[in-house]
Amino acid sequence: MSTTPNPDPAAETTQAAALIIGGGPGVSASCARLFAAEGMRVAIAARNPDKPALKALESEHGVRRYACDAAEPRSVADLFAQVESDLGTPRLVVHNIDGRVRDIFRKPITEADPELALQTVKNSAYSAFLVGQQAAKRLLALEPDASGKRGTIIFTNASAAFKGYPLSGAFAMACQAKTGLAQSMARELMPQGVHVANVPIDAAIGNTQEDGSRAHGLAGESSDDNMADPARIAETYLQLHRQHRSTWTFEIVLRPWVENW
Amino acid sequence: MSTTPNPDPAAETTQAAALIIGGGPGVSASCARLFAAEGMRVAIAARNPDKPALKALESEHGVRRYACDAAEPRSVADLFAQVESDLGTPRLVVHNIDGRVRDIFRKPITEADPELALQTVKNSAYSAFLVGQQAAKRLLALEPDASGKRGTIIFTNASAAFKGYPLSGAFAMACQAKTGLAQSMARELMPQGVHVANVPIDAAIGNTQEDGSRAHGLAGESSDDNMADPARIAETYLQLHRQHRSTWTFEIVLRPWVENW
Amino acid sequence: MSTTPNPDPAAETTQAAALIIGGGPGVSASCARLFAAEGMRVAIAARNPDKPALKALESEHGVRRYACDAAEPRSVADLFAQVESDLGTPRLVVHNIDGRVRDIFRKPITEADPELALQTVKNSAYSAFLVGQQAAKRLLALEPDASGKRGTIIFTNASAAFKGYPLSGAFAMACQAKTGLAQSMARELMPQGVHVANVPIDAAIGNTQEDGSRAHGLAGESSDDNMADPARIAETYLQLHRQHRSTWTFEIVLRPWVENW
Amino acid sequence: MSTTPNPDPAAETTQAAALIIGGGPGVSASCARLFAAEGMRVAIAARNPDKPALKALESEHGVRRYACDAAEPRSVADLFAQVESDLGTPRLVVHNIDGRVRDIFRKPITEADPELALQTVKNSAYSAFLVGQQAAKRLLALEPDASGKRGTIIFTNASAAFKGYPLSGAFAMACQAKTGLAQSMARELMPQGVHVANVPIDAAIGNTQEDGSRAHGLAGESSDDNMADPARIAETYLQLHRQHRSTWTFEIVLRPWVENW
Repeated sequence: MSTTPNPDPAAETTQAAALIIGGGPGVSASCARLFAAEGMRVAIAARNPDKPALKALESEHGVRRYACDAAEPRSVADLFAQVESDLGTPRLVVHNIDGRVRDIFRKPITEADPELALQTVKNSAYSAFLVGQQAAKRLLALEPDASGKRGTIIFTNASAAFKGYPLSGAFAMACQAKTGLAQSMARELMPQGVHVANVPIDAAIGNTQEDGSRAHGLAGESSDDNMADPARIAETYLQLHRQHRSTWTFEIVLRPWVENW
Repeated sequence: MSTTPNPDPAAETTQAAALIIGGGPGVSASCARLFAAEGMRVAIAARNPDKPALKALESEHGVRRYACDAAEPRSVADLFAQVESDLGTPRLVVHNIDGRVRDIFRKPITEADPELALQTVKNSAYSAFLVGQQAAKRLLALEPDASGKRGTIIFTNASAAFKGYPLSGAFAMACQAKTGLAQSMARELMPQGVHVANVPIDAAIGNTQEDGSRAHGLAGESSDDNMADPARIAETYLQLHRQHRSTWTFEIVLRPWVENW
Repeated sequence: MSTTPNPDPAAETTQAAALIIGGGPGVSASCARLFAAEGMRVAIAARNPDKPALKALESEHGVRRYACDAAEPRSVADLFAQVESDLGTPRLVVHNIDGRVRDIFRKPITEADPELALQTVKNSAYSAFLVGQQAAKRLLALEPDASGKRGTIIFTNASAAFKGYPLSGAFAMACQAKTGLAQSMARELMPQGVHVANVPIDAAIGNTQEDGSRAHGLAGESSDDNMADPARIAETYLQLHRQHRSTWTFEIVLRPWVENW
Repeated sequence: MSTTPNPDPAAETTQAAALIIGGGPGVSASCARLFAAEGMRVAIAARNPDKPALKALESEHGVRRYACDAAEPRSVADLFAQVESDLGTPRLVVHNIDGRVRDIFRKPITEADPELALQTVKNSAYSAFLVGQQAAKRLLALEPDASGKRGTIIFTNASAAFKGYPLSGAFAMACQAKTGLAQSMARELMPQGVHVANVPIDAAIGNTQEDGSRAHGLAGESSDDNMADPARIAETYLQLHRQHRSTWTFEIVLRPWVENW
């Protein structure tokens, strides 16, 4: 751990630190690689930061790894304090936790375990609240950059954000809760220079590996050909971060060309 | 407590038992009075069922009172078992818990207590999950009535269900989570004869007293003249319960004529 | 034709005259029968008012028939003047013109005849504008009834109002245009005591005959069992007309229990 | 006029010809400058292509000017034929006609001239249909580029696309009609490799001049500080055109940071 303060608090937001919450091999890893390639100091937080894929991000791209249980207030506060100490306040924060619990997904409402339902909401929406709150606290304490922007908070979401599908009541709760949070935060924080965005991915997400191959998301959901490419999702996140405040976008739905909607 | 089983399981759903979760003096009390006046056996559940207003519902309208912490799985399961034992399976279930916690409402996201945020979601959306699940279990076990309907589950909601306002991130989470749950349940249960409805009230709600006078909701929000009348809301709920399955409505927003939207 | 002015301008809106634009055998006929049965003086307008089904409405239910091309400003203005002269100002106006032109529906956008596309929009959305405008002019000139309501304008719509389906670009234009009009009129007129409602029917509509049998809508779209029953749609319209201004509904989607959405 | 056929039908869509319909000094001019700067062959069509601002686009940026009445089928078909002949089939087509008629805007529905209402819809939504149809015909006849994309059709829209404001019924009709068209075309054409996007600008749009100064839109609507910058809007359009089909966006709302929504 470094005790160096934010090395350049007035730096352009687009070249400052970035923090990604969620350590999956798809969107999180693609964001980490892209942000690092663009010159940002990148931190990634996961329950288990010692997964080989995360270690590879560190060794190959200089990404810092952090342990965090994003559904615990103390753990999230500690994470932000540590990242700020190590890399400076992150100007770009990506909450990329899906929160789906396999043992509850695609079960009739009558068979869904209430504890797993609550866990789903906590993993996804409540962790988004905790992350969003910490990000807001720290971004509002910074000076805006030359364009008037303090920073960007992005929430990855799913199609359940706008359509509650059968057999997935708890997941629909979690996704729409996250949208509600994002809307409230956007209306509250955008006029203060903090760009808040909600990005429902209306697709299975392919897990792009370093070698360009992909691992499937939930098995059988989609052929390789019509999945959302996480490298493209990461590009969209970077574009959102670089949008001028004259024309901010709150919500972008990303959807493969062949998706039925 | 009676041990009599459901006295007429094949009765028309519109004359069977009704269960209202939430013991407030507005919509819940108006529903209780209206449903009782229409010949339904009415149960009302609240954390504290001994409030004078609830006792008055019992003494004047024959409404049965039940204690329930709607955010606790066991408490909700016990409630449904007891009501079924006492009055028969409720064919109409109204979840009418707002869940707003005053100490968090209208505070900046940076100042919102995380524990209160989670409590807000649990009080409102998670309790809706627990109530909806119990209602679904029992309604699916019944025979449909002559019109093919098994019963009705109604969720009272607020305008934050479709618009996340600033300074109320936790409440927006809770309301939109409830909408997501309701959508998922509707798509899953309607084809099985259970009507699920989400009713955002886009207004302050006046608290109609027996004498026709009103008590205000959150002080200062609204003049008496432009609040939603809970007696009218109750009428809408009854209409929803009586809708033929040929033309079910999933969502109705109720809004006073002068509301700005 | 009578030259008697509105015989009772202060009458309760719910017992005054009603005007239905569109002479189909489904929703329009069901509305005419129901409104007449409720004691309203009913007028129905169609391009060809001499269809046997409309003559039957006259002979059996006392419904007055009027010729009108609802896409022509002069024709619509004349209609309202004549109905006002004959029956008094209609307090309930239903615009029930679908506007679909068979020769354009379900064709690729590349093959859709532009003239038919424009005709679709004129038949449906522009006629709604003309009807809504005439209704607004006359309702705003009346005194509100005892409940503060001047009257009700209802637009029948279709699921394309919220989802533009492929192979039906012109119809999607027409339906969403009608929604836009209805939203604007609702925001403008509700605070003046005129209730404006948009009712997308997310289903094929069965054509209920007097004898209870049904004729299908577009052939092959739906089995009899899962179509929206126009008699139930008419009930919803009457409920909307009778809603107290304390809790007005702008939009109701009506959908059969088995519909996929 | 050149009779040269499309000089390189297999060229990357992102470096091919672009056609902008609508000759205003804001978004259209910014798009023309940006697309030209990116190496695209740019055509711009307007009722009056001889406006000095358009001549300047030609002389300074090589933009080809075309006369077109976009609400006339023949005029639109001729335009596309001519542009194809001159520059090759445009892979990027931007429909940027607002269609607002000042004499009807912000008038009560009771005072809106029906002819102007119809003209508003024809100028905006019907012209979008005509342009979209011609674009679709020609794009579907091309081979996809290496990424599988045939081309992009973008519709500029306004906040009335999702909210019908009072005193502007005709404009709300037009904007929501355009959204309906765009949705239908997107669902129909995206699986064929044509990206269709709807971009509501929730703001007054500043008219950026070459010198960086701005002319206001509708006088008094907005201060310079919180208007959408058309140069930024043009950037978003280019990003949409370059989006990979793995993650296409159908709708982006662009909104200044201080906008109230």
